[in-house]
Amino acid sequence: MPTVPHIEKHFTATENVRDVVIGMADGLTVPFALAAGLSAAVTSTGIIVTAGLAEVAAGAIAMGLGGYLAARTDAEHYAAEEAREGYEIDHLRDREIREIETIFKEYGLRGKALNSVVTAMTSNRQRWIDFMMRFELGLERPNPKRAPISAGTIAASYLVGGLIPLVPYMLTSEINKALQISVGTTAIALLCFGAIKGHFTGVNRFKAAAQTLLVGGLAAGAAYWLAHLFG
Amino acid sequence: MPTVPHIEKHFTATENVRDVVIGMADGLTVPFALAAGLSAAVTSTGIIVTAGLAEVAAGAIAMGLGGYLAARTDAEHYAAEEAREGYEIDHLRDREIREIETIFKEYGLRGKALNSVVTAMTSNRQRWIDFMMRFELGLERPNPKRAPISAGTIAASYLVGGLIPLVPYMLTSEINKALQISVGTTAIALLCFGAIKGHFTGVNRFKAAAQTLLVGGLAAGAAYWLAHLFG
Repeated sequence: MPTVPHIEKHFTATENVRDVVIGMADGLTVPFALAAGLSAAVTSTGIIVTAGLAEVAAGAIAMGLGGYLAARTDAEHYAAEEAREGYEIDHLRDREIREIETIFKEYGLRGKALNSVVTAMTSNRQRWIDFMMRFELGLERPNPKRAPISAGTIAASYLVGGLIPLVPYMLTSEINKALQISVGTTAIALLCFGAIKGHFTGVNRFKAAAQTLLVGGLAAGAAYWLAHLFG
Repeated sequence: MPTVPHIEKHFTATENVRDVVIGMADGLTVPFALAAGLSAAVTSTGIIVTAGLAEVAAGAIAMGLGGYLAARTDAEHYAAEEAREGYEIDHLRDREIREIETIFKEYGLRGKALNSVVTAMTSNRQRWIDFMMRFELGLERPNPKRAPISAGTIAASYLVGGLIPLVPYMLTSEINKALQISVGTTAIALLCFGAIKGHFTGVNRFKAAAQTLLVGGLAAGAAYWLAHLFG
């Protein structure tokens, strides 16, 4: 479909950043919270490391494959909707022309201007489909190479994020000491990640850093409390 | 902004379904994989239940709050981009008019037809902004009530999905028996969830069910193997 160049750029950057954010947001939070929670319930760092690594492996695979399937589903959804629009243009031509008219009427076009834009838009079948895909359904033609890139980016981000809170439990067998170091390093990592995420999403960096730390802290606090209750 | 009625419907349904899918896909997979993994490494179902509940609490809170912040960020991003478009229309009017011209040129409009549509589009400031937001940036005006609904939907879905594989470990103290029941019930839950997800996303239901089972199985297999290695 026809594109204004800077749209493409905008969307590609966003997709990769979004995948890193998806993976790392959960990777930094859930394994950290699990390890903190187990610190209240078990007596050996070995179990925490085992549970943590099992969680990181499961999370990275589940989220990575989830991202792979989501990208594939987007591509299939686009193809299915494109075929449907094409069918409607071929078989329900009058209705589709009225849809185009309705869209431009809502932006204030009337009379000759409306007629000429509708005539131009509907004179080329592929362009007509492209316009309806983009405007009516809000769909961009997906990048066919997206799925494996998305899967790898999400899984790697989860893995990196998830290992940060676990390393302290690997280095010492004193649970309380490991917990303290894990809390400290993960808090710093959450603040940095939040600030970087804020930079890319256009949110104030300090606010984004504080929010990210809060989410991690609440999740870990709840896990700790629950594990303490049952442990 | 002006909308064609069925777009709204399309998007609202998609947002809620998407949130349930986000929460339940991870909820059914990660706690299941963690419990299966720990079955290979520990000798008491108590530790598995404790770790599982800690994970479910942490995951539900982290993903729910993540969804809350994402919806808030979407709303802030929309407001910031809308302000920017408004500024550009006020201060870089010629460049913005050329952008509108370029868009319609790519759909084949020329001469008088192009002039009249550009004149009509640029005659009302708010309509002009709305068109650029939707067409150039692909942004829908977000629902201001989205954030808490999204958070609750994701967290509840994660909780429901995550408890299914854990219940067997609560009912029996024999790890292998609990693991077998957990594998069976979670497999059925993954198949049902996959089929329902396929129904809503327009993917073939059997294919979606098989894919979802495969993701859960791979994640659990990796967690089991890793826990076995370290346990």
